[in-house]
Amino acid sequence: MQTEEKPIFAPETGDMSAEDFRRAGYEIIDWIADYSQNIEQFPVLSQIEPNWLKDNLPKSAPEKGENFAEVLKDVDRLILPAVTHWNHPNFHGLFSTSTSAAGIFGEMLSAAFDMKAMLWRTSPASTELEPVVLDWLRQMMNLPAEFKGLIYDTASISTLHALAMAREKLNLKVREKGMSGRGDLPLLRVYCSEQTHSSIDKAVILLGLGRDSLVKIPTNERFEMDSEKLREAISDDKSAGHLPFCVVATIGTTSTTSVDPIDAIADICERNNIFLHVDAAYAGSAAIVPELQPYFKGWERADSIVTNPHKWLFTPFDLSILYVKDLDLLKQTFSLVAEYLKTSETVQNQMDYGIQLGRRFRSLKLWFVMRYFGQEGLIKRLREHCRLARLFANWVDDSNDFEMLAPVPFALLCFRACPKSVEDLDALNEKIMNEINASGAAYLSHTKLNGVLAIRLSVGSIHVEERHLRKVWDLLNGKMEEVSRRGAEFAEI
Amino acid sequence: MQTEEKPIFAPETGDMSAEDFRRAGYEIIDWIADYSQNIEQFPVLSQIEPNWLKDNLPKSAPEKGENFAEVLKDVDRLILPAVTHWNHPNFHGLFSTSTSAAGIFGEMLSAAFDMKAMLWRTSPASTELEPVVLDWLRQMMNLPAEFKGLIYDTASISTLHALAMAREKLNLKVREKGMSGRGDLPLLRVYCSEQTHSSIDKAVILLGLGRDSLVKIPTNERFEMDSEKLREAISDDKSAGHLPFCVVATIGTTSTTSVDPIDAIADICERNNIFLHVDAAYAGSAAIVPELQPYFKGWERADSIVTNPHKWLFTPFDLSILYVKDLDLLKQTFSLVAEYLKTSETVQNQMDYGIQLGRRFRSLKLWFVMRYFGQEGLIKRLREHCRLARLFANWVDDSNDFEMLAPVPFALLCFRACPKSVEDLDALNEKIMNEINASGAAYLSHTKLNGVLAIRLSVGSIHVEERHLRKVWDLLNGKMEEVSRRGAEFAEI
Repeated sequence: MQTEEKPIFAPETGDMSAEDFRRAGYEIIDWIADYSQNIEQFPVLSQIEPNWLKDNLPKSAPEKGENFAEVLKDVDRLILPAVTHWNHPNFHGLFSTSTSAAGIFGEMLSAAFDMKAMLWRTSPASTELEPVVLDWLRQMMNLPAEFKGLIYDTASISTLHALAMAREKLNLKVREKGMSGRGDLPLLRVYCSEQTHSSIDKAVILLGLGRDSLVKIPTNERFEMDSEKLREAISDDKSAGHLPFCVVATIGTTSTTSVDPIDAIADICERNNIFLHVDAAYAGSAAIVPELQPYFKGWERADSIVTNPHKWLFTPFDLSILYVKDLDLLKQTFSLVAEYLKTSETVQNQMDYGIQLGRRFRSLKLWFVMRYFGQEGLIKRLREHCRLARLFANWVDDSNDFEMLAPVPFALLCFRACPKSVEDLDALNEKIMNEINASGAAYLSHTKLNGVLAIRLSVGSIHVEERHLRKVWDLLNGKMEEVSRRGAEFAEI
Repeated sequence: MQTEEKPIFAPETGDMSAEDFRRAGYEIIDWIADYSQNIEQFPVLSQIEPNWLKDNLPKSAPEKGENFAEVLKDVDRLILPAVTHWNHPNFHGLFSTSTSAAGIFGEMLSAAFDMKAMLWRTSPASTELEPVVLDWLRQMMNLPAEFKGLIYDTASISTLHALAMAREKLNLKVREKGMSGRGDLPLLRVYCSEQTHSSIDKAVILLGLGRDSLVKIPTNERFEMDSEKLREAISDDKSAGHLPFCVVATIGTTSTTSVDPIDAIADICERNNIFLHVDAAYAGSAAIVPELQPYFKGWERADSIVTNPHKWLFTPFDLSILYVKDLDLLKQTFSLVAEYLKTSETVQNQMDYGIQLGRRFRSLKLWFVMRYFGQEGLIKRLREHCRLARLFANWVDDSNDFEMLAPVPFALLCFRACPKSVEDLDALNEKIMNEINASGAAYLSHTKLNGVLAIRLSVGSIHVEERHLRKVWDLLNGKMEEVSRRGAEFAEI
């Protein structure tokens, strides 16, 4: 960060002058440009020890305002070393997500407008751009027009809204009478697979349904929900007097990106009049790639679908979309209008569709991203990520020392080292992963599949190229040999 | 917006070049600088008709990527006319909130890092800066050190977490067993005043408690909760076999910024072992002003407090803080750790403290704001807003044609025109307000107090000066005379 000589001090009252804003703003733009250009120079995982940043910060806020140039210097001195670089092309942990320049521009303007999109009148731009942009994406994902989208912050919140809708649809007056102290209510039941994201657990806790209300259906050898077991579980629950009311199916589970059999599940839901929510938080973006459409077969039969452009559509965090068929049901679940929020326009007010009253102007960044890359540009990038993931899977398949542990429908791999010389493969793979992560060269995460530790490698950064995957492959092979050798040495002692 | 000649096209793959990013970035910085400098030239409320923006947007995303300069042109052409300018110094509706330059810079860097602060290792910077900055603010607000803060997006979500904690504290196994189908649970009861924000209603709906579980206690002539009536309600509920478990008291209600008698309420909560949540979403920031501390007397006795720096601390939306005494209880309410999220560090992972798994790096902007303005600068600005509000209240008091309808503890006024010549004062005031709003000169909102319509005027913009309030006062008087005269003319016909 270059700091200029002229200080940027806060005035007596009011805000920074336009001149100072320009000067510091250019500096930050330069900083971000340099940062992006040099992203590969940084260790992927921050190399600080826990509490390093905390211990280096003053214990109290400054009495007097500081020169903003000093603040920016501290971004270099204190913040940067404590950053884990999600934009690094070798960030392969969890899900590899990354922002794009267009997305950053969207956030800049959104912060400048600082609108709170509760009412149409307080934010016509946000209120009207949002449904248009979400309809653009809906078309790209090949979903029918009956799906209407709403932006929330995270998939956890989108899914929470979906489950709240499902509960409301029961017509049990839970909105008014609640569930406590009522003898007339049966045990309500929600179903998902063993591979479903923990946000479903959090949602049933929050909604007062309890974790016991969530039935986790076993998966097959491909980590897909066993729909026959779902059918049985629902049938058993009904016989026991319980009330099955919602199934959460996943396209792209978090551990392996497995795809539940949506059509079969939708059949069961239809027969039993059960609300079907599809969690496509990660994989939904991939629906824009024509040859990946088969993985989404049947999702148009869902009542609601969540997908997160902040995961795999180059949009800065946070932007999660809930597509629902019955927008009125969503409104009925949440709408409450205080006097000070009553207005005369006959318009959609977005505060009526969720727990949050104010909403950030999030559609702007998605609009920027969609226009700057175009449909073709977005498809091309996602297609390339899937190609790279398959390429890597081929390397694994062709190796005697590694093996794949799950199919690769999208751009995430689960695999492990399995050299014949080593017995405790979990320990070996954990060491390999931890040492690569600690080196800062790449970031991998793990999961457990059928009781064994699998290394997860996600391909999703806008900066990722084949050479980055080749680098990880070389690192893995090198570490595998080194750690195995060390193990052999230990054994000899 | 000046557009340069050289096009900024998306490359074949990857992201915008650093050179193009710099060019477009400078342009956006200039745009924001100009926008801020000329903010008073814009009508406060957008002047578009509903659907204008929607009708002017293409029905589908572009096939091919566009030159980014074209996108920026459309910000001027399509977005700007549809913006209601929250940063305008004459935005006095709802709560007047505004961002600051330092806050925008924070959002820029936060978007560039794009970190998801779920685990310490994925975001040490966010995980460690957050508690430090929130502790700075805690000290400024004169809260005891036992309060630990966490950042959420909105007060609705912060309060939802507080109520979920309160429910968890009951030890009724709601987290595991839920509330449906259980004969052993009494009716759970939450208490707040009639003036409490609708987010409490939404929280009890979501939590499965139902609106009937929320008891609204009447307020006195100053719109403060009647603590004697609270005591009676709790006692009656206990006699009826219900289970009172949470009271929400407010410092700075939304309609009038009235202050509930916290000490008296805390006494009742202590005697009955009831969780006390204090909603100071708006007014909490004012606790940093020493002479306003008396309004906060007793809030240190709460179990949890919500305050929103995005409301009155010049921090861009969104940034809401929940301060809690029992962080372990919050963790116990929500913590669930999936295999792929298990890490070896013995650190605080922020995903354990809430419904959302990922969190934006929100503390950065608050850190920037606190450092750039310093404690003195922030106090000075809030003090000035309160001075301006009192000044305006004096004008109202000194006028024969207007009257105050509620006390002014902070920087929000509730008043109305009351010329002797007019009978239907609600209609008159609604006309005055609507015509001023429609003109774009200022934005006022309304509420109903004791059945009559009150005009609400909030003073909170970082750009507001005495002349802006003088302008509104002149507008009000002019409109009052004009509308009254028109009314008289109608009457004569």
